[in-house]
Amino acid sequence: MTAHDPQTTRTDETSETDDRAEELLGEMTLREKAAQLAGTYVGTMDETRTVEDAEELVRDHGIGFVTPFGYGASPHRDSTEVVEIANELQRIAREETRLGIPVLIPVDAIHGHAYVEDTTVFPHNIGVAAARDRSLAEEIGTVTATEAAATGAGLTYGPTCDVARDPRWGRTFETFGESPYLCGELAAAKARGIGAATADVAAMAKHFPAYGGPERGEDAAPVERSVSSLYRDYLPPFEKVLAEGVEGVMPSYNCINGEPSHASSHWLSSVLRDELGFEGYVASDWNGINMLYQHHNVARSQRDAIHKSFTAGVDVHSLGELDHVDHLVSLVEEGLVDESAIDTAVRRVLRLKSDLGLFDDPFVDAAASAETLGSESHRGLALDAARKSMTLVQNDDDRLPFDPELDEVLVTGPNADAVTNQVGGWSLKEEDELDGTTIREGIESVTGPETTVRYERGAGIDTEDDLDSAVAAAEESDAAVVVLGENWYLHEFGPQDVNGRTEQFPNRAQLTLPDAQRDLLEAVHETGTPTALVLVSGRPLAVPWAAEHIDAILQAYYPGEGGGLAVAETLFGRHNPSGKLPISVPRSAGHLPVRHDYLPHPYPIGDDEHLPSYDPLWEFGHGLSYTSFDYRDLSVSEDVLAADGSVTVSVTLANAGERAGEEVVQLFGGRERSSVVTPVERLLDFERVSLAPGEETTVEFAVSADDFDVVRPDATSRFESGPLSLRCESLDASLEAVADD
Amino acid sequence: MTAHDPQTTRTDETSETDDRAEELLGEMTLREKAAQLAGTYVGTMDETRTVEDAEELVRDHGIGFVTPFGYGASPHRDSTEVVEIANELQRIAREETRLGIPVLIPVDAIHGHAYVEDTTVFPHNIGVAAARDRSLAEEIGTVTATEAAATGAGLTYGPTCDVARDPRWGRTFETFGESPYLCGELAAAKARGIGAATADVAAMAKHFPAYGGPERGEDAAPVERSVSSLYRDYLPPFEKVLAEGVEGVMPSYNCINGEPSHASSHWLSSVLRDELGFEGYVASDWNGINMLYQHHNVARSQRDAIHKSFTAGVDVHSLGELDHVDHLVSLVEEGLVDESAIDTAVRRVLRLKSDLGLFDDPFVDAAASAETLGSESHRGLALDAARKSMTLVQNDDDRLPFDPELDEVLVTGPNADAVTNQVGGWSLKEEDELDGTTIREGIESVTGPETTVRYERGAGIDTEDDLDSAVAAAEESDAAVVVLGENWYLHEFGPQDVNGRTEQFPNRAQLTLPDAQRDLLEAVHETGTPTALVLVSGRPLAVPWAAEHIDAILQAYYPGEGGGLAVAETLFGRHNPSGKLPISVPRSAGHLPVRHDYLPHPYPIGDDEHLPSYDPLWEFGHGLSYTSFDYRDLSVSEDVLAADGSVTVSVTLANAGERAGEEVVQLFGGRERSSVVTPVERLLDFERVSLAPGEETTVEFAVSADDFDVVRPDATSRFESGPLSLRCESLDASLEAVADD
Repeated sequence: MTAHDPQTTRTDETSETDDRAEELLGEMTLREKAAQLAGTYVGTMDETRTVEDAEELVRDHGIGFVTPFGYGASPHRDSTEVVEIANELQRIAREETRLGIPVLIPVDAIHGHAYVEDTTVFPHNIGVAAARDRSLAEEIGTVTATEAAATGAGLTYGPTCDVARDPRWGRTFETFGESPYLCGELAAAKARGIGAATADVAAMAKHFPAYGGPERGEDAAPVERSVSSLYRDYLPPFEKVLAEGVEGVMPSYNCINGEPSHASSHWLSSVLRDELGFEGYVASDWNGINMLYQHHNVARSQRDAIHKSFTAGVDVHSLGELDHVDHLVSLVEEGLVDESAIDTAVRRVLRLKSDLGLFDDPFVDAAASAETLGSESHRGLALDAARKSMTLVQNDDDRLPFDPELDEVLVTGPNADAVTNQVGGWSLKEEDELDGTTIREGIESVTGPETTVRYERGAGIDTEDDLDSAVAAAEESDAAVVVLGENWYLHEFGPQDVNGRTEQFPNRAQLTLPDAQRDLLEAVHETGTPTALVLVSGRPLAVPWAAEHIDAILQAYYPGEGGGLAVAETLFGRHNPSGKLPISVPRSAGHLPVRHDYLPHPYPIGDDEHLPSYDPLWEFGHGLSYTSFDYRDLSVSEDVLAADGSVTVSVTLANAGERAGEEVVQLFGGRERSSVVTPVERLLDFERVSLAPGEETTVEFAVSADDFDVVRPDATSRFESGPLSLRCESLDASLEAVADD
Repeated sequence: MTAHDPQTTRTDETSETDDRAEELLGEMTLREKAAQLAGTYVGTMDETRTVEDAEELVRDHGIGFVTPFGYGASPHRDSTEVVEIANELQRIAREETRLGIPVLIPVDAIHGHAYVEDTTVFPHNIGVAAARDRSLAEEIGTVTATEAAATGAGLTYGPTCDVARDPRWGRTFETFGESPYLCGELAAAKARGIGAATADVAAMAKHFPAYGGPERGEDAAPVERSVSSLYRDYLPPFEKVLAEGVEGVMPSYNCINGEPSHASSHWLSSVLRDELGFEGYVASDWNGINMLYQHHNVARSQRDAIHKSFTAGVDVHSLGELDHVDHLVSLVEEGLVDESAIDTAVRRVLRLKSDLGLFDDPFVDAAASAETLGSESHRGLALDAARKSMTLVQNDDDRLPFDPELDEVLVTGPNADAVTNQVGGWSLKEEDELDGTTIREGIESVTGPETTVRYERGAGIDTEDDLDSAVAAAEESDAAVVVLGENWYLHEFGPQDVNGRTEQFPNRAQLTLPDAQRDLLEAVHETGTPTALVLVSGRPLAVPWAAEHIDAILQAYYPGEGGGLAVAETLFGRHNPSGKLPISVPRSAGHLPVRHDYLPHPYPIGDDEHLPSYDPLWEFGHGLSYTSFDYRDLSVSEDVLAADGSVTVSVTLANAGERAGEEVVQLFGGRERSSVVTPVERLLDFERVSLAPGEETTVEFAVSADDFDVVRPDATSRFESGPLSLRCESLDASLEAVADD
């Protein structure tokens, strides 16, 4: 429900919520309070929990949170069944517990409520970021919340506010890319969308404060960044999302400056509460509290971990179950934790449940749910999102679009006919559970009735397949579509039953295509048949050979259920691509980090002795169209930008080609000089426009002093005098910042 | 002269120095003071300066520092000539300036005074670190200082205290590797050695505080590390070297937390002066002040850069010349800089010159110099150092040593007969200026009279050569020695006239061997002839193919003038190798950072879904011998380690093989639990021992509470209670820390 919009937050409601929370708190035993701060699940994690187990924890212990479905390890995926489970849990909570406090059901609805059948599966965030469309992200948020609510879920673990600063990280696809601004804008849009849903669903900003930059790209490894980088590169998306009024925040698994986020009063109290003013609740990432003694080695035991995390500011132990209840009760009884602190945390939980309307009516209707899930309009949005995300990174000699009336087209590669890979992780895993169209199917549907579409897999993700047949087919075809990339994965490229041995591709260290895939691409190219490469992958892959030899390359990310059709429409010209890279594509892992907003620095014996700091295969923001856009007249309304002031930056662009197209206009800016070293440039704003052939438009951006705040070494920000630069495509403009002092 | 040893620092001397400094300060004009804070050079940098130019700056302006030789861009390399230049500069300073203040001549004597002919050229620090011998490092310091002093130099820019945490960095070879402890011990030993020289030469710790961890390994790029990492991983070598009483400190080129070190009062004043108590002088790295406005963009102009750097704590502008003098004078005149601050800086310079004896006798004797440079004992030390640095990383099936009486031996590869590459950077560049023996020559000298040593280059560093002849020779030979690796370079793999286009190997992003070298190795291996690979390189190269296929691999680093013989003696069994890797060898650049002292962290879906955090091709500390050492009985004198206490850790080892050998015993330790996340283990101590066949010895290490101090997020350190672990080879022991609280 997110939107703490003044228009929708009524004083009456707030007061009713407060009264209810205080009344309940007055009646609750310490143990009942502690139980509201613990959750459980259904499925097989370290141990197996059945629905009955969860029901018992609710009935007998008043456990506050249950995730019976809507995440990876749950066996309950049938959309009718999950509604029944949710309703029964709420019935027990309302009717069979002493105080009738409803449970809250959080789910991993990362790109749609995609762990339940019949739902709508959107492109992953990395593709949504390529679309650069705030309204789209907002609508995705709304549909996701609507579908989650229709099954009885009350909270979605998102939006992701993580900034992907190292593409080796296995969770890159869950982010909106490398730009703190882009991540913030789209995460905020998604949060607004969740809040705008008719049904109330809470949102949770994650993973606070800086999950996205682990050492060596290793999931959950320490984040080693300076204070100013943390505040400049990682915190801004959280600030924007908190401003939208998200109800929850989830700490990151990593340690920062030696402090695990789950035990850091610095981050969870001083920064999150005091600096950023967050008033919602903090819930652990699933096993995040136990990791304090299991892996970080900063706690002696589970009890000590609970003590440390609760004291630091974690209100809810998401999978704490009775262990958490027992430990918390004894910590209070032994005087190590104040009961008033417990009250504060419980108050947050009760208020949330009240605000979500769970005390009024926690039940959902199976028939309405069936109508809501995967509705035509929802699926239409998923297709629209996939289309807008399509990023044409290379199209030499206008190789694309292919003629849909060609006699024979080969579709090959491990991701050509693999809907599970196409949707990516955080989704159902079986093809028959998914409603999406594969790329092969999409191509069959968009090509003419006389066209023969041949399919040869040619290679597995990291295994050989019948390469010869693929090559033979390529030789006979008029065009070849080679669909390579990654299969689906979670966290660091697990699980092993999908991705094989740990060192097999995809893995952390390897950003290049595995031999089997490269051999297929090279062999098809060798036939001389016009070839397009489509990359279905959660992160940018280093494909220098392809960049040199393959005319047409389309980055498809994990495009979701509509992805097969969107790719096909793009390849065959029914759709004009407009996606822009949300993350730089490096030449190799050895070039990392490769980011558009790097800091300038000296070149002791000359810059021609250095490989450039930023020289990617394709730049952040790059993306081609089948038409061409001419930019001109980048201008600024004022010469001077005052503290607390703003200026209007305008640029005119014309569709100089012969077909209609959409274009994302991107404004970059930086400080040419400041008191500390600042990025050479950063994405400041963007706007998606649609232009008919010959049409032109002027786009205006409001640039404010805040956009040029300098993050100081002590984590403060300030507006300073000094020269500023602006860039839009190849146009430059300048501006003078004049601070008050 | 470094050693502020109580036995050698006489009160009389101190008092004389103080009196002289105060007396001079009283007489000096502001401009004369400013001139003492500026230096010049002879040679071609951005501009060309002749000896006459330098003499004029001394005579007419009293410039304080001159580097006329002993660095890369000087045309003066003849050992007799440089003595004349030094003496004439001092004569002018003493006799033709108003106050007769001598000049100070700093040189880049990085691995011996190697920019002057006839001097002794030692292995680079990375090889000295492999030798793990404090006495050796100390003696190298003494010889280097002795030879520098013999030519009239008064300061050597070193020792290097940088810790190499990313092997992509082009200055890795100048460091003592990845371990803060190892770097500190050997840099301190080198500083002691410089101080122990009969002739007075000052030392300068560089590059403060954390040059060794630039982003993406790019030279001088920002260092992005947390506060606790900076204090745990980068500062310790500086602390140890400052404790030896070095006279100077040089800031690093990079920015840290957005602040360029050259303009950081935090690092240069709060930390260096207040926390670490440094009382010597701070000199800019050569162009480090100008970079503040040229590259870091934190200053408006050279004048502003001088203002900021001087205010932050840089006393001397190493190449500031008259610009610096003019700006400093005007900054004082306009009230922006206090003359008292100038006095403080000048006092440091005058005291140093006085302590060095330059007021008494700044002249050197050409005949004595000729006797000193490259003396037999000096060259013997260089050979000894090279021998001890030899690190045998692989020797499957006891492939080595080769029999010196073989009929025919092939020596091939771009570094087999290339003395300039073998000595590495910071050395004379022409073969005829260098006295070293190449590996080819070494093999010719150690093999029997009946042995034919054939040489085919086979490949260039990054270019093809006559591969076929090399393969044909390999087929006819009884053994093949393939010498691959890198050529010499400075900073980030420059200059271009040596290393070709920027992207050519060696470069930052590529840690693998270039195709030409790999082809040679594979082709020679393919012949079936017993093959040894020798790597002459400044940093660890990722050679997974070689690790899998080549039985014998010897890491030679840049072994200096004695390296050719040391390699040959090792390959043919005259020398039993004992070097230990001072830095981990990664499997690929994509695995970086790869360090033995990584921080533990969670594995959200299981550690078997992760590539390990540390899984190098060869570990830090690895290194084989031709004999074998059995370790047993790792024990600790006490069960408990108290705050301010210490324990004795002992281990017994026996030479279980059939030949005498030296072994470096290495003790690692870590905390199993602490208040913040700490490294899994770190190198705590090491000792080199020599054992005859069958002989055994017990090595004792004093382990103190300090060794287990925990660096806190706020940069403080403290000793905490908790379990500790110790490891020596595969033996483990444990210990309980008990803090006072």
